Amino acid sequence: MYVELLIRPRFNETDANGHINNTVAPVWFEEGRGAFMLESLATRVSCMIANVSIDYLAEMVFGYPVTIRTGVSKIGNKSFTYRQEAWQRDRLCARASVVLAGFDRVAKITMPIPDAIREKLAQFMFEDVTG
Amino acid sequence: MYVELLIRPRFNETDANGHINNTVAPVWFEEGRGAFMLESLATRVSCMIANVSIDYLAEMVFGYPVTIRTGVSKIGNKSFTYRQEAWQRDRLCARASVVLAGFDRVAKITMPIPDAIREKLAQFMFEDVTG
Amino acid sequence: MYVELLIRPRFNETDANGHINNTVAPVWFEEGRGAFMLESLATRVSCMIANVSIDYLAEMVFGYPVTIRTGVSKIGNKSFTYRQEAWQRDRLCARASVVLAGFDRVAKITMPIPDAIREKLAQFMFEDVTG
Amino acid sequence: MYVELLIRPRFNETDANGHINNTVAPVWFEEGRGAFMLESLATRVSCMIANVSIDYLAEMVFGYPVTIRTGVSKIGNKSFTYRQEAWQRDRLCARASVVLAGFDRVAKITMPIPDAIREKLAQFMFEDVTG
Repeated sequence: MYVELLIRPRFNETDANGHINNTVAPVWFEEGRGAFMLESLATRVSCMIANVSIDYLAEMVFGYPVTIRTGVSKIGNKSFTYRQEAWQRDRLCARASVVLAGFDRVAKITMPIPDAIREKLAQFMFEDVTG
Repeated sequence: MYVELLIRPRFNETDANGHINNTVAPVWFEEGRGAFMLESLATRVSCMIANVSIDYLAEMVFGYPVTIRTGVSKIGNKSFTYRQEAWQRDRLCARASVVLAGFDRVAKITMPIPDAIREKLAQFMFEDVTG
Repeated sequence: MYVELLIRPRFNETDANGHINNTVAPVWFEEGRGAFMLESLATRVSCMIANVSIDYLAEMVFGYPVTIRTGVSKIGNKSFTYRQEAWQRDRLCARASVVLAGFDRVAKITMPIPDAIREKLAQFMFEDVTG
Repeated sequence: MYVELLIRPRFNETDANGHINNTVAPVWFEEGRGAFMLESLATRVSCMIANVSIDYLAEMVFGYPVTIRTGVSKIGNKSFTYRQEAWQRDRLCARASVVLAGFDRVAKITMPIPDAIREKLAQFMFEDVTG
């Protein structure tokens, strides 16, 4: 299961190569995770991003909406992993794997993901339909 | 007198028209004001931006440095005005007028510009050399 | 009359002051003009931006949608002026005046706004309801 | 060996959490690769980005310069991999691995990395000094 967010590419997100610049996908994926948090957890979890890995599969362009799909691919004790996809015109254009670690913002140390959060996350395992 | 800041345009600041997108100039001018604050006042003043007006005179491109010049054009009781210019390849490409109002961030109300700040600002009146 | 575009503020558009950074409004207004072009003219006109002036009236924050209203305030022979507004939580937060000049992208010179465009623009005069 | 580029963080790159937003690192790393291309190859190679993976190790803040180090970690027939690091105040804050594939922009197909480029790239193998 995944949460979808519709993105309208902005003209300033294109670059001189004529398509959406590669640095834009991380912004859209961040928005996708925000939408996921609201829908799945009805809260923001105190986490820090440990790793973002994005496969660029096809160029994205201005003028067509992009759908960001966000689900969970792995849940550990102190971290969990999002799987995200960016689709434009029925084509998978970018795929992200994002690792978040539980984080105590006051003490500035990592901490376990609360059980209540882990249970909710488990309801949003991304089922890979693209192979 | 003005303070100069050298900007190296970034590739993601271009757009599909092949040049620097118009929304980038406000970012560079913000950086110019930050450099001005450090050099002229050795501090950040508690202000809020009231108005930003930018004349776009010539396109800017990737691959050449841009010089941002920042000085003061007007000093009032509760506000002052920056004059800023963006130069690339010896050409004035954009010119900004930015009005800042003194602002109490705690009370969230406007307040006078402190006299000590006004005196320092007065040393950086931008002398218009372009006509 | 004006065209409305709904913007969902992005987390990376906030800054360390806790609200939306002032350099973001120009991006949203650019998107508003793009939506206007599509709805009002069903085309993109060959123009260049001559001036963007933005009044910042109230801070905007993450977590609430922003409505961009775009209409026309003035139509001349070689240029026309947009009036734009950004509303959040029933409050007018920013107001823009944007001057565009007709522009021949091949010859790189200004040119008159075509009559057909001027007539369409005239149907979208922004009626100021805020006083 | 690596090429260094000094970045001056911009205020609009901070977010409401008070530090540099995670989506900024990809922009800085893109600039680092641009500087690398100029210094190491004296040209831009026709490539497309296949994957960007960034480890976020420590927060970066406004007000201190960031050094981007860019070198090569792997050279294949049709692709090569950059290793990049972002340092602030003597601390490794982010580390990137970026895979580029040779790309024919006209035919829009992947192609081998030219031998002349591969030889030059081989002179810039990033020697990992951080362990």
